[in-house]
Amino acid sequence: MIQIAILGFGVVGSGTAAVLEENKQLLTARCGEEVNIKYILDLREFPEHPLGDRVVHSIDVILQDPEVVLVAEMMGGAHPAYDFTLAALQAGKSVVTSNKEVVATFGAELLEVARKHKVSYLFEASVGGGIPIIRPMQTDLASNEILSVSGILNGTTNFILTKMIREGASFDDVLKEAQRNGYAEADPTADVEGLDAARKIVILAALAFGVLLDPNAISTRGITGITSDHVAMAKALGGAVKLIGHTQQIEGKTLALVTPFLVPAANPVCHVDGVFNGILVEANMLGRALFYGAGAGKLPTASAVVADIIDVLSHRTQERKLPVWRVAEAEDYAPAEAFVCRHAYLMEGCSHCAAKAKAALQTEECVMLEGGRFAVVSAPMRRADADAALSSTGLEALVVLPVLD
Amino acid sequence: MIQIAILGFGVVGSGTAAVLEENKQLLTARCGEEVNIKYILDLREFPEHPLGDRVVHSIDVILQDPEVVLVAEMMGGAHPAYDFTLAALQAGKSVVTSNKEVVATFGAELLEVARKHKVSYLFEASVGGGIPIIRPMQTDLASNEILSVSGILNGTTNFILTKMIREGASFDDVLKEAQRNGYAEADPTADVEGLDAARKIVILAALAFGVLLDPNAISTRGITGITSDHVAMAKALGGAVKLIGHTQQIEGKTLALVTPFLVPAANPVCHVDGVFNGILVEANMLGRALFYGAGAGKLPTASAVVADIIDVLSHRTQERKLPVWRVAEAEDYAPAEAFVCRHAYLMEGCSHCAAKAKAALQTEECVMLEGGRFAVVSAPMRRADADAALSSTGLEALVVLPVLD
Repeated sequence: MIQIAILGFGVVGSGTAAVLEENKQLLTARCGEEVNIKYILDLREFPEHPLGDRVVHSIDVILQDPEVVLVAEMMGGAHPAYDFTLAALQAGKSVVTSNKEVVATFGAELLEVARKHKVSYLFEASVGGGIPIIRPMQTDLASNEILSVSGILNGTTNFILTKMIREGASFDDVLKEAQRNGYAEADPTADVEGLDAARKIVILAALAFGVLLDPNAISTRGITGITSDHVAMAKALGGAVKLIGHTQQIEGKTLALVTPFLVPAANPVCHVDGVFNGILVEANMLGRALFYGAGAGKLPTASAVVADIIDVLSHRTQERKLPVWRVAEAEDYAPAEAFVCRHAYLMEGCSHCAAKAKAALQTEECVMLEGGRFAVVSAPMRRADADAALSSTGLEALVVLPVLD
Repeated sequence: MIQIAILGFGVVGSGTAAVLEENKQLLTARCGEEVNIKYILDLREFPEHPLGDRVVHSIDVILQDPEVVLVAEMMGGAHPAYDFTLAALQAGKSVVTSNKEVVATFGAELLEVARKHKVSYLFEASVGGGIPIIRPMQTDLASNEILSVSGILNGTTNFILTKMIREGASFDDVLKEAQRNGYAEADPTADVEGLDAARKIVILAALAFGVLLDPNAISTRGITGITSDHVAMAKALGGAVKLIGHTQQIEGKTLALVTPFLVPAANPVCHVDGVFNGILVEANMLGRALFYGAGAGKLPTASAVVADIIDVLSHRTQERKLPVWRVAEAEDYAPAEAFVCRHAYLMEGCSHCAAKAKAALQTEECVMLEGGRFAVVSAPMRRADADAALSSTGLEALVVLPVLD
């Protein structure tokens, strides 16, 4: 019997216990032995739960029990989750986690500590919920140089945008509905302002390029400013508005940003709707691969946590190659201004104005809309250059979005 | 320096050499040592190629060289690829392959031989080209029971169907264009008749359920019978016609089949267009995950071969858990007739006829079309039951497709 401990018995923690119980036979076969939850660390008591007798309130009980070989951390928040993780690794216990805040903030240090103590630190559940993405990037794509990663990394905002697009509803109305349905939290700031997606793209950037950026230091814009004009422009151009986390390298520096993009229908990310997540990886040999699925939720996220548990427990005797991340210095950050892409503008004006805009933006892609408006998509360039070219024509844009090709 | 050999220097074989050369630094870092192609087995000579001096014409040279630890088999066809693979495994060399015919036909035996000789037999490139699917199913989804796998597994037929849908062209015309562009082979039978997809779904079924079915014994229908009526029906119902390989279990038996389906827009597989592949896995905890990307092509497929090479070479000292497959006996096969799903019918008739069809098929989903036709989608049932219900109304179907929900 292999003994493990769960830290945090909230949605994902109790989901992990449920997956371990539901698929018990299968897990025993894959780990070679039965897996037992010896402790559950939580401030609360769960007298009604079948595992209620496993609840402890002090991390020391777990740290000091040599039987416990693995700790699954699903507390959320930076502290004390980071501190408990550090202590567990130093005590020679492997840690798996769904905690994106801890991985995005302290991942480089925790991986180094895990390496030093010859244990594992795995975090498949920290990005994309149940979607396999962390492990495939490290194994299946090991034969490739990663060129970029772009994805819908937050289900709440994708649910809201999908509703706005399909029903023509306003941001505020859809947010209220999402809160009623449990798709958005009472305080939705981290989701709708893009911070949740920023943490996830920072983790993906570290996996792709080996440099851990500070999620608070990257350019992050949420969806609170998205209006029916953005939605109308995207529809006119045959695409959809999506909140995208994007990372790539520019002249040896690492760019990571979160912002709403116009995603054309030809990009598979355009069709990732509702609460689903979709992550597009571009690699130098493979080309593009999309990983799509439930980006959140109790059982999907727990399924990724348990996959990490199996990975650790079925390779107990083998030393694992953990990724080496370097904490970014100021000069590692590529500025968001350096990002080159196409830009979509919604403008007021006649076909004569549209011709001027097309010439300025070096493009033929333009759609005339009702009400004396048009939508035009620039050639690939920096945003500042596109704005400057347009302003020289005297035309003013109503809204603008970068285009994810 | 780690010595490997390549069997077959065609498209994928030369692509593998190219990936190994192009990403050399990265591979050396990941394998811990430089990887060298010591031999290339081919009947031809390649005097102009930089690796031309590695070409040998006898497998014995490779089998008898103890320096060679890994053989990458990319010959295609059952023989002698199977025989060479068997001999290499028996000689204590790991084998990686892109050869779906060998894996689908002899996979159970070859895995068993690899286990006995404590070497690896990996085949990520045999399904979905460069798309990570084999390894994610074995690792990321290890925490789940797989419920079903459904996918677009053949890029040639998906290219043809996409063209037929977008341009209203006929099967014969698009096939000729695909042959001109190199998207279809001179003899396209294995693709358009579904055999290529059958081999791949048999491999996925074995991964999901542990039973290796005979690809020639499963129900396989290609796209040669798809007409503008099928395309029009799918459009009217808001979906697309796709050639799908599908596997699930029915009462403890394993069902695998290949046939054109109507895929509704709500299913992400509907949006997998052109030469791309997309594989949807449904699992008991995760729910649905889609793996999308280039399902064929020189470098994408080679990228998967090289990922397997890295996996083997970076874990040389560790014993690997290879999947255990049992060769199916007659009673392991669930008959295709037992498959329950919705069925879409295109019929001639007035709204009165449509009402009769709806009642017979226990459904409200019906669209009246121009020209005195309608399209109706049954409740989930066996195809024979749907046909019987319809025939009791005296109405006759023009075309019918199963629906992939």
